[in-house]
Amino acid sequence: MKLTINKTDLISALNYVSKAVSTRTTNPSLEGMYLSCANNILTLFATDLEMSIHTHVDVEMLQSGSVVVPSRIFIEIVRKLPSEQILIETDENKMHLVSDESQIDIHIQSAANYPAIPSVSVTDYMILGSDKLKRAIRETIFAAAIDAQMPVLTGLLLEMSKDQFQLTALDGYRMAIRKETIEDGLEFSCIIPARVLSELYKILNLESNSDVMIKYAEKSVHFTIGDTILISNLIGGNFIKYNDIIPKNSNLIVKTATKKLLDACERASLVAREGKNNLIKFHFEEEQFHIVSNSEVGSANEYVESEIQGSDLKISFNSKYFIDVLKNTSEETVVLYFIDNLSPCVVKTPNSEEMLHVILPVRYKE
Amino acid sequence: MKLTINKTDLISALNYVSKAVSTRTTNPSLEGMYLSCANNILTLFATDLEMSIHTHVDVEMLQSGSVVVPSRIFIEIVRKLPSEQILIETDENKMHLVSDESQIDIHIQSAANYPAIPSVSVTDYMILGSDKLKRAIRETIFAAAIDAQMPVLTGLLLEMSKDQFQLTALDGYRMAIRKETIEDGLEFSCIIPARVLSELYKILNLESNSDVMIKYAEKSVHFTIGDTILISNLIGGNFIKYNDIIPKNSNLIVKTATKKLLDACERASLVAREGKNNLIKFHFEEEQFHIVSNSEVGSANEYVESEIQGSDLKISFNSKYFIDVLKNTSEETVVLYFIDNLSPCVVKTPNSEEMLHVILPVRYKE
Repeated sequence: MKLTINKTDLISALNYVSKAVSTRTTNPSLEGMYLSCANNILTLFATDLEMSIHTHVDVEMLQSGSVVVPSRIFIEIVRKLPSEQILIETDENKMHLVSDESQIDIHIQSAANYPAIPSVSVTDYMILGSDKLKRAIRETIFAAAIDAQMPVLTGLLLEMSKDQFQLTALDGYRMAIRKETIEDGLEFSCIIPARVLSELYKILNLESNSDVMIKYAEKSVHFTIGDTILISNLIGGNFIKYNDIIPKNSNLIVKTATKKLLDACERASLVAREGKNNLIKFHFEEEQFHIVSNSEVGSANEYVESEIQGSDLKISFNSKYFIDVLKNTSEETVVLYFIDNLSPCVVKTPNSEEMLHVILPVRYKE
Repeated sequence: MKLTINKTDLISALNYVSKAVSTRTTNPSLEGMYLSCANNILTLFATDLEMSIHTHVDVEMLQSGSVVVPSRIFIEIVRKLPSEQILIETDENKMHLVSDESQIDIHIQSAANYPAIPSVSVTDYMILGSDKLKRAIRETIFAAAIDAQMPVLTGLLLEMSKDQFQLTALDGYRMAIRKETIEDGLEFSCIIPARVLSELYKILNLESNSDVMIKYAEKSVHFTIGDTILISNLIGGNFIKYNDIIPKNSNLIVKTATKKLLDACERASLVAREGKNNLIKFHFEEEQFHIVSNSEVGSANEYVESEIQGSDLKISFNSKYFIDVLKNTSEETVVLYFIDNLSPCVVKTPNSEEMLHVILPVRYKE
């Protein structure tokens, strides 16, 4: 392989593909990145066996070829090279980089043992606005389980239909749902690992305002963003029947400004956090909403301006669950629905089903 | 104590004083901050017994008094309070904060056991430009020893005279000296803990372009920046006779652009770092300057454009020592002086003695 490449183009491609490089792996070749040059195009590819990312860059090719280069050191060196033009030349054992007065050799591995770039046999596709996908991921991903006994809970359920898609995540203590309207959607549902969606979110942030093309195969889902394709393996098994979890009635409805409620929860949490339990109490009495917390360092009493309909209630929550919801929504107003102090609270936007959160309370103690 | 205070003023004062709060202490009262209100002025004071910082803020006082409040939680809460006006009221056990709809109590300690604010009996003072002091600290502090068998090496030697001051730091492998011209300086020299100068540097960065007033007492040095006074204890003992360490002659003189040499060292270091030894080699042959490094991941060969006078030389260094010098200087050109590959290298600015670094080589191996 021998080629000259523009440094800015190469760094941009590396920023995408590096998201799929294994950081903790027992297979050393997965710490590498696969580079292949043919027809004046350099293809970059990495996989951690849960997902793969590949992209390509136009280059001036002098000789075709394929290699696997250690990712981290390759990226660090390219970023530091002195000029915009980089000559890359490989022999059996090393990659030789030349940029102005700098010449660097990196030991490489054979491309023979690296996994192949997945081929896509599916032709059906749909187009989704990047902003909608980003919002749906941001508003739900925090509710996925980190390390669950049920593997499906470490993923997010993606339900796609002709005019709507929905992401759902839950960890046994809370559930997050976001719906977005679309046009000409495919009909499928699948469970995508939360870690993959987290990397997809970062990639969507690298591209400004582009559309995402989505293809669905039986065991994988493909996201195409500009020149970059991210392929995620899917988590097998059935997702929780989440509709059964959503309370259908309520005895108390509270409408309030998102930012004011977030700030009050954060202040109460500062005091509660010192007690290691993150416990904050919501008191609804005489049509007033107070948030109360206390620990060995002190106590907080927050009055939250709100519209209140229904019966009085005292209920406790882990403050983190409310802060996660309120910090990640772009909605200016939220509505809370309560039944009693043992039943889950529902958080929605007014007059809309697009956002829905369910949060389990903690047993209330005076 | 009862007062109303402007939130922005209070946060600004906390940003200064918190720099002296002990983070690791066996004395719990040192995790606190001392607040005292009298004559419509709130004084804030913290000390870790190595240094102390105090400052003051105008307030609307309703009742005088003194308390010790836990620093970290107090600062976090004040930052999150909803309005610009804060009412602070204390009783024997707690501080009560009111800001709009938020009411927070923090348990406090008696001020009786907290160290007293040091009184300053010295009247002699001098004025120093903040920019000169910042530059001198930045260009020398990295060379102080972190955890030395000789306590004096964990400090920086400050030598003050009528028309010049000098900071000197050394750790046994390298030495950094910065001189700055001044007017009407006091005559003294003392050893200031590196950690204190690091906090002073941060404080100088909070104030833009102000002057610093310096007073020297037998066992402490006082820096006044705006309304804030930082008092540092001094390290006892005699500093190393550093003039004996500076090589006086040279067989090879190399003049080069700081930025180009830094970039070349950093690239060579990326490869060397993987070998865990940080070793880079300087080769001066046929009036050319090459930097060479290699490890199991690969090798780097950097050509550094420079003016070279003297004999050929091959010499090895820990790359970190050169990178520290080159990254922290504002000089565009540096001159390197070498004797042989066992003798220390001197780094200076052209035609000036204001900056001087001495770096020990590592034994050269082919």
